[in-house]
Amino acid sequence: MIEVDYRFPLGVDAEKQAKVIAVGQTAGTWDARFAHREAALSKHLGQVITVKRENITGCSIATVRFPEGNVENDISSLLTMIFGKYSMAGAAKVVAVRLSNNYGLSPKLGISGIRQRLGVFNRPLIMAIFKPALGLSAEDHAAILKEVAYAGLDIIKDDEILGDLDVAPTLERLKACRQVIDEIKQKTGRTILYAVNVTGSADKLLEKARLLVREGANALLLNVLSYGFSVLQALAADADINVPIFTHPALAGALCAAPDHGISYSVILGTFMAHAGADAVLYPAHYGSLPFDASEEAKIKHSLRDRNVFPVPSAGIHPGIVPQAIADYGKDVILNAGTGIMDHPDGAASGVKAFFQALEKVEQQESFELEHLNDGALKRALEKWGKK
Amino acid sequence: MIEVDYRFPLGVDAEKQAKVIAVGQTAGTWDARFAHREAALSKHLGQVITVKRENITGCSIATVRFPEGNVENDISSLLTMIFGKYSMAGAAKVVAVRLSNNYGLSPKLGISGIRQRLGVFNRPLIMAIFKPALGLSAEDHAAILKEVAYAGLDIIKDDEILGDLDVAPTLERLKACRQVIDEIKQKTGRTILYAVNVTGSADKLLEKARLLVREGANALLLNVLSYGFSVLQALAADADINVPIFTHPALAGALCAAPDHGISYSVILGTFMAHAGADAVLYPAHYGSLPFDASEEAKIKHSLRDRNVFPVPSAGIHPGIVPQAIADYGKDVILNAGTGIMDHPDGAASGVKAFFQALEKVEQQESFELEHLNDGALKRALEKWGKK
Repeated sequence: MIEVDYRFPLGVDAEKQAKVIAVGQTAGTWDARFAHREAALSKHLGQVITVKRENITGCSIATVRFPEGNVENDISSLLTMIFGKYSMAGAAKVVAVRLSNNYGLSPKLGISGIRQRLGVFNRPLIMAIFKPALGLSAEDHAAILKEVAYAGLDIIKDDEILGDLDVAPTLERLKACRQVIDEIKQKTGRTILYAVNVTGSADKLLEKARLLVREGANALLLNVLSYGFSVLQALAADADINVPIFTHPALAGALCAAPDHGISYSVILGTFMAHAGADAVLYPAHYGSLPFDASEEAKIKHSLRDRNVFPVPSAGIHPGIVPQAIADYGKDVILNAGTGIMDHPDGAASGVKAFFQALEKVEQQESFELEHLNDGALKRALEKWGKK
Repeated sequence: MIEVDYRFPLGVDAEKQAKVIAVGQTAGTWDARFAHREAALSKHLGQVITVKRENITGCSIATVRFPEGNVENDISSLLTMIFGKYSMAGAAKVVAVRLSNNYGLSPKLGISGIRQRLGVFNRPLIMAIFKPALGLSAEDHAAILKEVAYAGLDIIKDDEILGDLDVAPTLERLKACRQVIDEIKQKTGRTILYAVNVTGSADKLLEKARLLVREGANALLLNVLSYGFSVLQALAADADINVPIFTHPALAGALCAAPDHGISYSVILGTFMAHAGADAVLYPAHYGSLPFDASEEAKIKHSLRDRNVFPVPSAGIHPGIVPQAIADYGKDVILNAGTGIMDHPDGAASGVKAFFQALEKVEQQESFELEHLNDGALKRALEKWGKK
């Protein structure tokens, strides 16, 4: 069974709208002509379970249950059923979706698989983003990677807006960075994952993903909401794509940020990503640079962890937030910083070192106050970005 | 060049936010380390063109221009650039996007091609939707099609929520309906298009679409916003898919309906569909059963027509709206009715006849007042649904 909570603002007849959804988004109405198929039709109907009024806000939450047989065990057909036509019917927001454990896909690798590939089991992972986002050549990418990789970085990713552009074609970026990854492996024994952004029309994107993996890509990045959940599911179900898929939340605000319309962040970036085969999911941290609700972040974390998916709180992450992040997440988290590594006053390598010094300080339960810190990467980072 | 208008509500510093977008959604910032690549970086920067305050609402509209070289001539990478991360940054709505004529794809068939396939050049086309949406067998679909096809229908489509379900697998629906289509062709010389809903993960969906076309499908239906613009573009660019693609607006409200967030309906269902290769685009009519703004509908109509894409105003369409629809659209429109055909008091064939009688009345400039009508399908429809 699929259960969906719809929130209606004050003034909407939630009882009536819930019935409109339960019938209109499933079999619809039928008449005497279909009397002979009544049993077949009625087994597709949705059912209103509860309608509750929230005292403080005056909003109502209606829970509607849908038969799993109406959809195709994927997120795209689910979206059409639960909020396809109805999304255009007036003020209503999908605030929770409950799916059975076997609905959709599970990650191929997830937390445990990514840890195995890296050989890192007992601490948060540190991830960087290539910056500037556009304009660097493939060789620039390799040079940046070399700097941060030798400093101890676990994972790097393309900026989400960097596609397959002439200035640095995707395959060339991979080839240039693959040499660095191989060199690091040879000299230090460490594995660095590079999540390469896959783009293009759906057929080309899937071909390119397979090509990249054949050419040595050890992770992929997908802007799921720009390209479609159907593309994520195709990648996740493809046995040849035996590398972790990192998903980026680009465009999520267009679906999730409005108070009385759309679908909650926790549903899109939590429930749906976790049931669509993502291995690691990026989303804004509530203490980061984007406005984000702490309770939505907590729901995302739980939805992902429940299915062995790595949570990647992002946007405005710098070494000063490490104590807070560890308090919230413990060790099973990927700390993902763009400028928080690349714009360190002493360069990107120091940005990485500052994160590891911060992890060490938290581990040792030592103070983050500037006056207690020795000179070094962490102190320089805290002087620039402060502490949360 | 790509130009985007962002609308910010009263209280937002639009000048500042426009600059954040122009830089943050393109190259981002860079420092002395990249001095040697300054020329390469700066050619990717966006540029704020104007920021205007609307006197009545207090909203501001900022126009930002982006280089085409930042994106991949498609809608998915465009979405990531213009509103990827920024969609999560606070209240802002994308209200217009201006693209060059050669950006993206043009329809393979569009208005002229669909008319040629049907051999109908001088009137609006009449389209029906199989109802009830779920629970009918493949044979039920064929029986319904037979009824409406002999009554003169031009096009029929699956309901958007009907996927590839055990009760009526997509290929079986096609095969059953294809027999009716062939029979009609043989007996009357007329062509009926059946837009079959294509669903599944992206790889399976594309395979299925090719299979359906090989097996005789003469039109396809895609829920673009549930599956992704990248899937539409893959279908539209595929030379083997030599049939019109009808796009459904399911889920559009989640992106478009909020006042201060997301992307306007006219951008998603107009500009983007028209540049992503759709042949015919469904969207709510402003006098239909969904709340929809007349000016957004007019913009969609213009964006589609400019690129030879068939506008298909939908939802709550019945014979009583024909005079209004013709006044708005003239002949190059597809009138798409679900219950407005299927729930005619005398059955679906009468529903189709009522539409053709309505077209005839408008052509002859005759009255739609009940007292002036002869008994028949149109009168019965107007008695049930009234007149707009």
